[in-house]
Amino acid sequence: MFRKLLLLAVLSLSTIAAKAQNDIAIGKMYKLNSKQLNEDREIQIYLPKSYTDTTITPQQYPVIYLLDGESNFNYLTAYVEKLSKYPYPSIPEMIVVGIVNTNRTRDLTPSTRKEENMTEAQKSKIKGESGGNANFFSFIEKELMPYINENYRTMGYNVLIGHSFGGITALNNLLNYTDMFHAYIVHDPSIWWDGQYMLKQYELNPTKDFKNRKLFVTQVDESQNKGGQKEHYSSIQEYNQYMTKTKLKNLSYKYVQYEGEDHGSIPLKGNLDGLRYIFEGFGINFKQIKENPKLVEENYKSFSQKMHFEFKPNEAYLNYIIDYYKKMDEQDTVKYFEQYRDKLHQK
Amino acid sequence: MFRKLLLLAVLSLSTIAAKAQNDIAIGKMYKLNSKQLNEDREIQIYLPKSYTDTTITPQQYPVIYLLDGESNFNYLTAYVEKLSKYPYPSIPEMIVVGIVNTNRTRDLTPSTRKEENMTEAQKSKIKGESGGNANFFSFIEKELMPYINENYRTMGYNVLIGHSFGGITALNNLLNYTDMFHAYIVHDPSIWWDGQYMLKQYELNPTKDFKNRKLFVTQVDESQNKGGQKEHYSSIQEYNQYMTKTKLKNLSYKYVQYEGEDHGSIPLKGNLDGLRYIFEGFGINFKQIKENPKLVEENYKSFSQKMHFEFKPNEAYLNYIIDYYKKMDEQDTVKYFEQYRDKLHQK
Repeated sequence: MFRKLLLLAVLSLSTIAAKAQNDIAIGKMYKLNSKQLNEDREIQIYLPKSYTDTTITPQQYPVIYLLDGESNFNYLTAYVEKLSKYPYPSIPEMIVVGIVNTNRTRDLTPSTRKEENMTEAQKSKIKGESGGNANFFSFIEKELMPYINENYRTMGYNVLIGHSFGGITALNNLLNYTDMFHAYIVHDPSIWWDGQYMLKQYELNPTKDFKNRKLFVTQVDESQNKGGQKEHYSSIQEYNQYMTKTKLKNLSYKYVQYEGEDHGSIPLKGNLDGLRYIFEGFGINFKQIKENPKLVEENYKSFSQKMHFEFKPNEAYLNYIIDYYKKMDEQDTVKYFEQYRDKLHQK
Repeated sequence: MFRKLLLLAVLSLSTIAAKAQNDIAIGKMYKLNSKQLNEDREIQIYLPKSYTDTTITPQQYPVIYLLDGESNFNYLTAYVEKLSKYPYPSIPEMIVVGIVNTNRTRDLTPSTRKEENMTEAQKSKIKGESGGNANFFSFIEKELMPYINENYRTMGYNVLIGHSFGGITALNNLLNYTDMFHAYIVHDPSIWWDGQYMLKQYELNPTKDFKNRKLFVTQVDESQNKGGQKEHYSSIQEYNQYMTKTKLKNLSYKYVQYEGEDHGSIPLKGNLDGLRYIFEGFGINFKQIKENPKLVEENYKSFSQKMHFEFKPNEAYLNYIIDYYKKMDEQDTVKYFEQYRDKLHQK
């Protein structure tokens, strides 16, 4: 009896009660059966806010394919949402497709490891299959991408993001499967893998035409160049030296080192900067639109030229501008943007 | 008929089909009726992974109270999850409570704005009520915190994160409501507000005892010191100068400027560094545990002393270590950690 009273007393301490509860959901998980890989694969899908906006004509979006989805989907989708937010988007709204691992070392390595290229520490740590990049790319190219393109409104511009083994996988894709993606973000890649297999592949192709792709590479700082990390660290340094000194044909390349980050944390800051690097020039100074309404059209034109891909302003973004100038009672600006919107997005 | 066939042909292009789908949920949204504010308030709650782990004894967690929850909850909870992940956590697992705005300027300002302290631009932009910090803190202290502490397993260590108006709100809380939180992360705060009201408040209290609180302040870089941002920029500079030159009693203070970030984007990198600053010394070199199993106990002891608050290792973390050394067949280490675990977390 006393305990029951005590319990009641404790429960009534709070003068506030929760009224309702809903899940805060950021995307959906799908299971796809891959014939190429002969297994079920989990795929995470994030759709941008305007995707389901029924007041606008259906828009098309770039797609980010994200390796190691289970480790990166949550913050990466939040970045895309935050950086693409009106009135000051620095990147476009995008669909994010996270690929969850089943057998990571098998899928995310470009070559079957050769015993002579492994240290004793690597031999004990890395076991099982490797060298499955080709099959993994078949899965993406023949199954995942068609599935995404048929079931979602994609505009055809694709980005690949990879970290560590996922990083060399992305570098392999850029070099040998160049048509699949338009831009790559690569974090602290395992260039050491299999006697620097990927670096050697790049060195064998100095005249490669990269077809206007973009590549952003990150690395941890010098303080991480110690112990078992030495080979990992110096291999990326060698790769960057090769990429910097070689006249790479039609490749925009940027390398950034991050002070205070380690191998695990580097994608957090790196993806933020990588996304902004890839879409550099996308942002428009919203406050200058009033003086020069053509700024939006002009900027999309120059941005598209720079990207070698046609981007056009989302109807929801144009409506945001229209609403803003309606409130300011700037009728001419409103009329201009309504005409521009209707020209781009015919109902 | 032809159109139907065409449709079928298009639909059958893909050789892959989605089998199932589930929401990817990162938290729950609750509605609380606040008597202090006389309105319903939306609250986002994130629970760490081990919170619902039924194989361990129930653990207690620090709590982050996050202002402007609608803008920051998604990436912030992902940071907490990623940075607290075993085997290399740099911060503890934590509960995150996001507070969604209803009337932002009312709640997140320390003083009622005085006309003479406002520029014409500010007068047209900032309308309605202001100076509601005191009521807002009553809501947190008398309703939200009791609700969280009664309904969730909290350890009593609380962090407050605020940006812009939320930043001066956090600084007001630190100065005038010092007992509510143990650490503060403040991004690009609106020190300019109401004739630098908050800076003056700090200047009036040079001998204030900050009771071992921690404060991490971020600011955009010099390139943002232009146009309408000049007063905003220089006011934070003045605040930092005051904080740096004054012998602040029992306050750990750190200020960081971020190159390439603007007022909107700065919380993204800032929260990453802010969380690691507050919990500096939490991380343990997992690989050194084998040589010195006492490292974990010793580190938690010195970390707790530094924090002026007792932290102890989560049972799930200790189980992770035990499982790791079981696989390595290190019986002595396993036995040591089993005893240590059972001493800390009695079943």
